[in-house]
Amino acid sequence: MTSDPQGSGVFDHPWLSGLFGDADMAAILSPDRQLAHMLAFEAAWSRACGRAGIFDAGQAETAARAIEAARIDRADLAAGMAQDGVPVPRLVAQLKQVAPAGALHKGATSQDVVDSALACTLVEASDLIAARLEAVQAGLAALEARFGAAPLMGRTRMQAATQITVADRLQVWRLPLEGHAARLAALRPRVERVQVGGASGDRRALGDRADQVVADVAAALGLQPAPRAWHAMREGIADYANLLSLVTGSLGKMGQDVALMAQQGLDEITLTGGGGSSAMPHKQNPVSAELLVTLARFNAVQLSALHLAMVHEQERSGSAWTLEWMVLPQMLAATARALAVAQDMTQRITRIGTP
Amino acid sequence: MTSDPQGSGVFDHPWLSGLFGDADMAAILSPDRQLAHMLAFEAAWSRACGRAGIFDAGQAETAARAIEAARIDRADLAAGMAQDGVPVPRLVAQLKQVAPAGALHKGATSQDVVDSALACTLVEASDLIAARLEAVQAGLAALEARFGAAPLMGRTRMQAATQITVADRLQVWRLPLEGHAARLAALRPRVERVQVGGASGDRRALGDRADQVVADVAAALGLQPAPRAWHAMREGIADYANLLSLVTGSLGKMGQDVALMAQQGLDEITLTGGGGSSAMPHKQNPVSAELLVTLARFNAVQLSALHLAMVHEQERSGSAWTLEWMVLPQMLAATARALAVAQDMTQRITRIGTP
Amino acid sequence: MTSDPQGSGVFDHPWLSGLFGDADMAAILSPDRQLAHMLAFEAAWSRACGRAGIFDAGQAETAARAIEAARIDRADLAAGMAQDGVPVPRLVAQLKQVAPAGALHKGATSQDVVDSALACTLVEASDLIAARLEAVQAGLAALEARFGAAPLMGRTRMQAATQITVADRLQVWRLPLEGHAARLAALRPRVERVQVGGASGDRRALGDRADQVVADVAAALGLQPAPRAWHAMREGIADYANLLSLVTGSLGKMGQDVALMAQQGLDEITLTGGGGSSAMPHKQNPVSAELLVTLARFNAVQLSALHLAMVHEQERSGSAWTLEWMVLPQMLAATARALAVAQDMTQRITRIGTP
Amino acid sequence: MTSDPQGSGVFDHPWLSGLFGDADMAAILSPDRQLAHMLAFEAAWSRACGRAGIFDAGQAETAARAIEAARIDRADLAAGMAQDGVPVPRLVAQLKQVAPAGALHKGATSQDVVDSALACTLVEASDLIAARLEAVQAGLAALEARFGAAPLMGRTRMQAATQITVADRLQVWRLPLEGHAARLAALRPRVERVQVGGASGDRRALGDRADQVVADVAAALGLQPAPRAWHAMREGIADYANLLSLVTGSLGKMGQDVALMAQQGLDEITLTGGGGSSAMPHKQNPVSAELLVTLARFNAVQLSALHLAMVHEQERSGSAWTLEWMVLPQMLAATARALAVAQDMTQRITRIGTP
Repeated sequence: MTSDPQGSGVFDHPWLSGLFGDADMAAILSPDRQLAHMLAFEAAWSRACGRAGIFDAGQAETAARAIEAARIDRADLAAGMAQDGVPVPRLVAQLKQVAPAGALHKGATSQDVVDSALACTLVEASDLIAARLEAVQAGLAALEARFGAAPLMGRTRMQAATQITVADRLQVWRLPLEGHAARLAALRPRVERVQVGGASGDRRALGDRADQVVADVAAALGLQPAPRAWHAMREGIADYANLLSLVTGSLGKMGQDVALMAQQGLDEITLTGGGGSSAMPHKQNPVSAELLVTLARFNAVQLSALHLAMVHEQERSGSAWTLEWMVLPQMLAATARALAVAQDMTQRITRIGTP
Repeated sequence: MTSDPQGSGVFDHPWLSGLFGDADMAAILSPDRQLAHMLAFEAAWSRACGRAGIFDAGQAETAARAIEAARIDRADLAAGMAQDGVPVPRLVAQLKQVAPAGALHKGATSQDVVDSALACTLVEASDLIAARLEAVQAGLAALEARFGAAPLMGRTRMQAATQITVADRLQVWRLPLEGHAARLAALRPRVERVQVGGASGDRRALGDRADQVVADVAAALGLQPAPRAWHAMREGIADYANLLSLVTGSLGKMGQDVALMAQQGLDEITLTGGGGSSAMPHKQNPVSAELLVTLARFNAVQLSALHLAMVHEQERSGSAWTLEWMVLPQMLAATARALAVAQDMTQRITRIGTP
Repeated sequence: MTSDPQGSGVFDHPWLSGLFGDADMAAILSPDRQLAHMLAFEAAWSRACGRAGIFDAGQAETAARAIEAARIDRADLAAGMAQDGVPVPRLVAQLKQVAPAGALHKGATSQDVVDSALACTLVEASDLIAARLEAVQAGLAALEARFGAAPLMGRTRMQAATQITVADRLQVWRLPLEGHAARLAALRPRVERVQVGGASGDRRALGDRADQVVADVAAALGLQPAPRAWHAMREGIADYANLLSLVTGSLGKMGQDVALMAQQGLDEITLTGGGGSSAMPHKQNPVSAELLVTLARFNAVQLSALHLAMVHEQERSGSAWTLEWMVLPQMLAATARALAVAQDMTQRITRIGTP
Repeated sequence: MTSDPQGSGVFDHPWLSGLFGDADMAAILSPDRQLAHMLAFEAAWSRACGRAGIFDAGQAETAARAIEAARIDRADLAAGMAQDGVPVPRLVAQLKQVAPAGALHKGATSQDVVDSALACTLVEASDLIAARLEAVQAGLAALEARFGAAPLMGRTRMQAATQITVADRLQVWRLPLEGHAARLAALRPRVERVQVGGASGDRRALGDRADQVVADVAAALGLQPAPRAWHAMREGIADYANLLSLVTGSLGKMGQDVALMAQQGLDEITLTGGGGSSAMPHKQNPVSAELLVTLARFNAVQLSALHLAMVHEQERSGSAWTLEWMVLPQMLAATARALAVAQDMTQRITRIGTP
């Protein structure tokens, strides 16, 4: 979310973003940042090919600096999208205006640029998510320290069962997050990988210097080298999306519980700062709790799309790849928002337990 | 899509919108237009309550005019969203600064404003979709007139079967659209309805003048009156979403066919203007055809969310309602784009049939 | 569900069917009934082609009678499925053992048999669903007559709002069902259609007698004639699935409300016959209410699959068609069960309203 | 699948199971096996509580033996399902007829029985899936050894790109399976856990002997002990479902490729044993390849349901839990079938590469 959101989607809408938006993730997902990653790839590519002797070394460095300084005409990229389905042909054409054409992009393909840029986005997104997972856990641990011993009616199938403690409930909110943090740590190396394949993904244009170029580009971008192109193997993306939906699912359970606990007649929780109603100013609506449920359902549904996108025909499926672009950024945004809302909620709980 | 799209979602992204965006639908879904609909509701409400004697008639007209002229602080709405979950409490607070508080909003509730505004959006969206359904049908009919008699290998289970004609294939693309146009016409009155319920949806605050106020507000907004509040009955939204996905599904079938026909070795179609590759300038990628498949899959997945949102507890589910906001506008945008792409594709086909 | 269910899926599992199964729909969906429909198609086909002079009239009648009396080896059909992907080649081979081969199946194709049989299933399923929609409405109307005037706390966003009446709540449960009944009536002619296409769907083998044969087969099966093959136009199936999910969605809302009303602390409803717990015999679990929510979510998710199956390439997609077989029968079963549960629930409510 | 499948779902249907069914997974998922696991839990529970001094040791052993020898009336379980939503109250009631009531089930709850039985199922299912993942990899490696050096046209966006080798294509099919095997190994300990919670999940009834009882029951069942009840933490199930869909997604990509390669005009693959058509006996339909796509889409859609089921309110959500029962077994069946089909396909490929 820039300082003045202007989109029509809920995450960067002028006012709906007040509910759905997250400034940190919005910055990570911003077109500016995406473009920066694409240019970083092109600059790293020129330098790596220069060092490998594929490009003239001097021209390569000249190209890399020109790429880094380039001002990109986004309307031209947009015009190219409709025709090419990817921004890269126009991006490269623009770069050729300012940098030596012979030391630029050659040997790479559109997907290398776009997917490596995506991997860079996931590095930043994962850092944010990891930090927030820790923060929510800390918030819940603090609640447990404060209220854990208090009695709470255990409820199964929406009916009072036997008395438990607040700690019992809170641990069910917290422990899955611990697991998700471990999952994320294990998963990161599998998606924070450079994508280098060339035209059909076989790196043929790089000959016997492929490993060197790949390692070099990966290092420049802060990514893992990948033993071969992953352009048509999308299980990493689908698996990452699964993690996002696991996170929002666990937070959705917490949100659902809070919304139920806040009901009149149960009164098992007190939160400060609940939402108002235009018709009933006395109400304290558990807006944040409901939002956690919404974001969980949203991600659970979106996840299907990224699993469908694994059926990625031949060496590159324009259709399946494009579907990822529509869905993954939204899942990231929803996850970041859910974590922020949950963290904030842990701060706003001033009482928990059977009244 | 405004002239300078600035969002991070694909529909209004600076360059991805070149592939996904549709200027006409973007205008319909724009925050400006949404706000205009909300203000139109509030003005209509003041006037209707004035005419019904619920508000002072003079004050009501003063209020309506002030509402129509009001300049709304969107950052304030955004701040309210996080707290209230809806923009209306802050919107009404702002309006009270410029209009007589006693002739404003009273008897309505947030959902009345937001859902009536949504119904106004659907009127405009349905007009656009209906017109485009007709245009795609016309484009396909023209292709049939031109190429219909040509032979084409019928293919079942991805294998050559028996020879058919191009007309056989084209009719399978066109006839479902005819049905969708009829479905849309039948469906419109069920969703283009004013929402008036008040606090808990029973219109109690309006007493025996409820029908009059509802009819009056509906007429002012170009909507159907509704016999009672539909605030917790969301089947109209889910059913409308079904229609959107039926449209993109039928167009996705057409896109899938075109992508298959365009393969080397089959060569059953020629399109002008296919997309280029950054690595292989000779390629003619069937970008539009692939995009139709993508949009079909996207909508098919999103549809689940709107059916899930039917489980809308009690008199208003913040959670389920909010899920609609995340998904329905995107389905509208995807549908409009698919129709535009399909229409354009019918113009760009210069040959069809077994070579 | 046969008298002794033996499946492993929840709908015909030896004990899980006690929760999920519905005997009437199980009979409609049973393999026996499916086979009967396929044989009815083949018999009608022979007779129609006999009358049209495509087959020898005497042989055709002989064939039809033999088909009707045929005992089919199901293990052989199963063996054929793995190879052919459809049961029809083996079915026809078996029939050729008992009936004149020259007056059998010729001019039709597998999809004609399977999809026409499906249409026959939908006739029976729609009759059942229509009757149950009426029964649930009647049950709700009876509750309204009995308890409608009682006060009930209106609840929005899970918080007490303003007092409404029980009638207000009950109408929100009932009115959508009225709409669904109308939707079903409008939809039936669009799916209860015979499928006749032949090899690639163009009816070529029938020549100028195609309309006569189609009309004749349709009449024999109690189906609508279809102006052309609908084999690759699956929007009718997707639209029918939408209706099923609309029904379960509306009932899921009712179930969610009942589960919330039955909470201790709210006590807004009393049902007889709630479920017990193995650990807490005193509990009265709102099992039926929860099940309605489950079935709503189940169908909402499944619906995606049938919309995805609209991307049905060329003249027949084995892949998309097969996906329908996995999902549609389950949606029918879930819908029938939800209606039965809801109807039963209306009988078991002995009190409703604020205590 | 028993030797004579009688269900109406595709996995155990008399003839559809010929396409969809897998005998090994059907045995694992069979009602018989589920019941055996539930009884194994109850027997282990009695013994563990006997050893811990919670039950009389002698009576506990008597009970365990009686449980192991018990003949269960399944119709009675079915009758209980409708009322209780779980089979356990009736199962325990039946066991009390044959075993000392005081040394039976006490301290456990329905969910302990059902979820521990599920964990036992997942042990067996994971063994099968792991073995098949290895077999498919071996089949693909053999193909690579045989045909890897052959040239193949690389295809991006459904268009010929540059020439690659068959090995390039085959590795994209094989490498993800290697990753899935590793994922499965890492995931197993997180789902193959005993579930012990008691009434509200706090193990209170077990007092200070909880850890001993849990360890004892886990050991008897071949499961991991779990530090606390996981009854309302369903991320393990959702994560396992993700793995299943990753597997079918990767196999779906392989299936889609094979179906495309088998097209006339491309002719890049030859398989023995393709399916026949009732109308066109000359056709060789790539039924297996299409089925892999179908199963991938099926699982991708179902996955949503299991992520939705993570929003599991309070100490036990009948609604969310029940949704798992409807979906997870089918995902297991689809995955096992896809693996078997893929393995078989690797055996049936007799040529691969540009003709």
